[in-house]
Amino acid sequence: MKKSLLAIALLGAYAGGAHAQSSVVIYGNVDAGLIKRTDQTLNIGKRANNTLGFKGSEDLGNNLKAIFQLEIRYEPDTGTLEQGAGGIQRPLFQGQSRVGLTGGFGTFRIGRGLTAFQESSIAFEPFHGIPSPSGFQTDLTVAGYTSDPLGLPGNSTNRFSNAVFYNTPEYAGWQLNATVATKEANGAAALVGTGTTALPQYPAGSAASANPFSISATYKQGRIGLMLAHEENAVESKVSSVAGYVMALPETKLMVSYQVQDQSHTKLINTDTKAWVLGANHTIGASKLIAGYGQKQVDGANKVKQLSLGYEYSLSKRTYIYADISNKKGAPAIAPSTNTSINFYSLGVNHSF
Amino acid sequence: MKKSLLAIALLGAYAGGAHAQSSVVIYGNVDAGLIKRTDQTLNIGKRANNTLGFKGSEDLGNNLKAIFQLEIRYEPDTGTLEQGAGGIQRPLFQGQSRVGLTGGFGTFRIGRGLTAFQESSIAFEPFHGIPSPSGFQTDLTVAGYTSDPLGLPGNSTNRFSNAVFYNTPEYAGWQLNATVATKEANGAAALVGTGTTALPQYPAGSAASANPFSISATYKQGRIGLMLAHEENAVESKVSSVAGYVMALPETKLMVSYQVQDQSHTKLINTDTKAWVLGANHTIGASKLIAGYGQKQVDGANKVKQLSLGYEYSLSKRTYIYADISNKKGAPAIAPSTNTSINFYSLGVNHSF
Amino acid sequence: MKKSLLAIALLGAYAGGAHAQSSVVIYGNVDAGLIKRTDQTLNIGKRANNTLGFKGSEDLGNNLKAIFQLEIRYEPDTGTLEQGAGGIQRPLFQGQSRVGLTGGFGTFRIGRGLTAFQESSIAFEPFHGIPSPSGFQTDLTVAGYTSDPLGLPGNSTNRFSNAVFYNTPEYAGWQLNATVATKEANGAAALVGTGTTALPQYPAGSAASANPFSISATYKQGRIGLMLAHEENAVESKVSSVAGYVMALPETKLMVSYQVQDQSHTKLINTDTKAWVLGANHTIGASKLIAGYGQKQVDGANKVKQLSLGYEYSLSKRTYIYADISNKKGAPAIAPSTNTSINFYSLGVNHSF
Repeated sequence: MKKSLLAIALLGAYAGGAHAQSSVVIYGNVDAGLIKRTDQTLNIGKRANNTLGFKGSEDLGNNLKAIFQLEIRYEPDTGTLEQGAGGIQRPLFQGQSRVGLTGGFGTFRIGRGLTAFQESSIAFEPFHGIPSPSGFQTDLTVAGYTSDPLGLPGNSTNRFSNAVFYNTPEYAGWQLNATVATKEANGAAALVGTGTTALPQYPAGSAASANPFSISATYKQGRIGLMLAHEENAVESKVSSVAGYVMALPETKLMVSYQVQDQSHTKLINTDTKAWVLGANHTIGASKLIAGYGQKQVDGANKVKQLSLGYEYSLSKRTYIYADISNKKGAPAIAPSTNTSINFYSLGVNHSF
Repeated sequence: MKKSLLAIALLGAYAGGAHAQSSVVIYGNVDAGLIKRTDQTLNIGKRANNTLGFKGSEDLGNNLKAIFQLEIRYEPDTGTLEQGAGGIQRPLFQGQSRVGLTGGFGTFRIGRGLTAFQESSIAFEPFHGIPSPSGFQTDLTVAGYTSDPLGLPGNSTNRFSNAVFYNTPEYAGWQLNATVATKEANGAAALVGTGTTALPQYPAGSAASANPFSISATYKQGRIGLMLAHEENAVESKVSSVAGYVMALPETKLMVSYQVQDQSHTKLINTDTKAWVLGANHTIGASKLIAGYGQKQVDGANKVKQLSLGYEYSLSKRTYIYADISNKKGAPAIAPSTNTSINFYSLGVNHSF
Repeated sequence: MKKSLLAIALLGAYAGGAHAQSSVVIYGNVDAGLIKRTDQTLNIGKRANNTLGFKGSEDLGNNLKAIFQLEIRYEPDTGTLEQGAGGIQRPLFQGQSRVGLTGGFGTFRIGRGLTAFQESSIAFEPFHGIPSPSGFQTDLTVAGYTSDPLGLPGNSTNRFSNAVFYNTPEYAGWQLNATVATKEANGAAALVGTGTTALPQYPAGSAASANPFSISATYKQGRIGLMLAHEENAVESKVSSVAGYVMALPETKLMVSYQVQDQSHTKLINTDTKAWVLGANHTIGASKLIAGYGQKQVDGANKVKQLSLGYEYSLSKRTYIYADISNKKGAPAIAPSTNTSINFYSLGVNHSF
């Protein structure tokens, strides 16, 4: 229990002190605003994730560093931890909880966090990966796939628990990223799958039937960015994605992604899902214009179509206000509504610290 | 995700750096002591709220600032989050979770926090608003009113979730404060009200039947402070209050408040509650003497009378020890006791950081 | 609510400012690795406790200081708060939540934390008190005793809630430590004890039948350390321990402990437990070798025998990697296995900040 005094660390750093000193960095953001959704009352909620994090690094010499990051997620409208499906509170460090080493060999971490695919895909989504319904990240960008189907109810759908994370160094613009999780059980509810309610394919508390893994290759050079990714989860659903962006102008980013999901291990019908997303960001001074359009097709089911427009105005480097408007057609209706064309409007503020 | 490095922010400030730099401020307090209450065993608990908070501000130029505040509440005797009725743990940021802008126009925030009335009333309560039974804040000072009757079980009774908060600038000693919440449902248990158990007035999971709002006008000039306030909650209960204080001597503060609650929307009898509180604070060197007396009358029910005496001794600007003695008559008995005259004694320490 | 600005406190300290200034210190560690246990799948988990803490002190003059400490415990593999038996999440500040005064009279604290015996015993356990199955701390070092049998399900077994903690100053190498808790109920499940399921000795929600207390006397002089300790819990189980260590060489520490538990207040058979542990630590440069062997005998039951070997390699003062191998015989089998000889292997990294 060697505890470093924050004050000493900071002042040591200031005084040009020993290179081995480090400090805990506290960071995060608060995002809150007004939200109106078809057939729902006016709400106060979030557009982006809300975080309060603690991170740090320690120089070990020989270009080696120890690193850690612990990230709380919360809901600013009610003060609770971030809530998943059914209002269930997620883990304290929902954002991530990882420790590892970084050096000439790349970065190796252990714990819980976004998978390689989920993390890499954010650069190709026009709303920079926010979970708002105006964004595409958690549905169309991943073809409806979930990374953790055997997690606790309400759990995150784009993270692995009990995993190791490895990122290679960049070489000629390319980087490889890999995440592998153990099979250990994590308190899941039963998943019927190809079984029956009485005899589910994955009973409650099941361990994974195969080690979940996720790999992505990313390329970034000049005005071009590319991604190739593949991931398989604890119930052997598979997702593959190819994506790219180009800085058409210094202030204009155009992006596209295409992804397919195969759920034939747990489904007899509707096993294949295809989705694509087109996006654009355009910056004019303090203003940022966002546009996106995408489609998702589950074989044998309705086509989902989503069009979203967004606007962000920066009051500073750390604070912006935003307004979005979005329409999604073909998604399952939200009870008691039978409406399958949902409009979504939001207006709010995002402050980073 | 623009993350500011705390170290840089601090050192920037020290070096007389750019005015736009800011830092995360960590603050809070620990309050713990011995508590003895009639017919209960000797306990260890708290007299004041216990907080661990994170806040900050960013200068945006033109006299405009972005501000945020996230405040954890906890119980130091057991290490848990703050517990409400039935031992249910409250939200992580029970104290508040708000983000907003402050400038020449006043202060505008969004999120969850004390309502305008609840916050303004603290200055007129002799025990500076602590939740201890020796204080008057959560019962007599508000005439038994609750701000959030449709919140989750165990929830705070003096806050709005899903709300916007506005405070005007001060003008000639006057300030206006307003809080308005959305109608959105928040997971409440059923509230029978004027209905029946089978057909409650507000079924489980009800949304508000009207937008909750709270307004207060406060005046502070020289030796005088005044407050006028009105609030209506999600089940249309109404509370109004008028309060004042005078610094009779530089070291002596006298205070009075009068408040009425109207619950006729959810009750057929006992609809009106009236309450008043008299209080005094007197400082002698490091010592502070506290006295309060108040009555609460629900029409058609017993009168509640409370007398409380307190003593605080400051060991420093941030640490004090305290001792209270209090008696409350006419309140419902605490089972298994049938005693309706409750004595309360406390002895402990409060440390702020 | 006197809130000290961290920035001001730090810069005040740097400028050689007033002695009364203090700062909040953020500290903690992340420990994660691969774990393999007989008959269980490969897991990712922890070897040591994982903490994120906030602490501070304020100089009150006259050699008196106010101190506080709030310590979060968490699981880095899933991001949750620390989990006890049955996967139940423990309190937010599971590590400790205490406030108090320290000065010439010793240290007096109030809140929740390790008991005097549990805290003192760590210095005589070869794996420095870590909760890993390769360590002896929570079983053999305490003869199977639990400090909090009437706590909430999943609760810590080596802490008192609702307690006062006192440590004398050191005198000629000796220090006395005492912890006393109130009898107040804390939401326990029923404990059958010498009763029946229908009429348990301690029904659900029972208060303690006697004030729990813990005392230890420790001695530390030159190459020698000693401990004598006695503790009684809320259901009047008693544990006594005698322990010692000697620094045989500057880099070699040998240690021994012997402890007995008496559970005759809640059991008719198997009332007495005896245990002993031998341990050794040997340091060679950045390497630390750990060895331990111990036995536990419940009268009328099988003897438990545990042999553990560990290795730690320090990458820096704050980061080490580790590998353990351990065997425990005679402990109850882990269902569905019927194996009572358990092997345990771990490999991971521990980073303090």
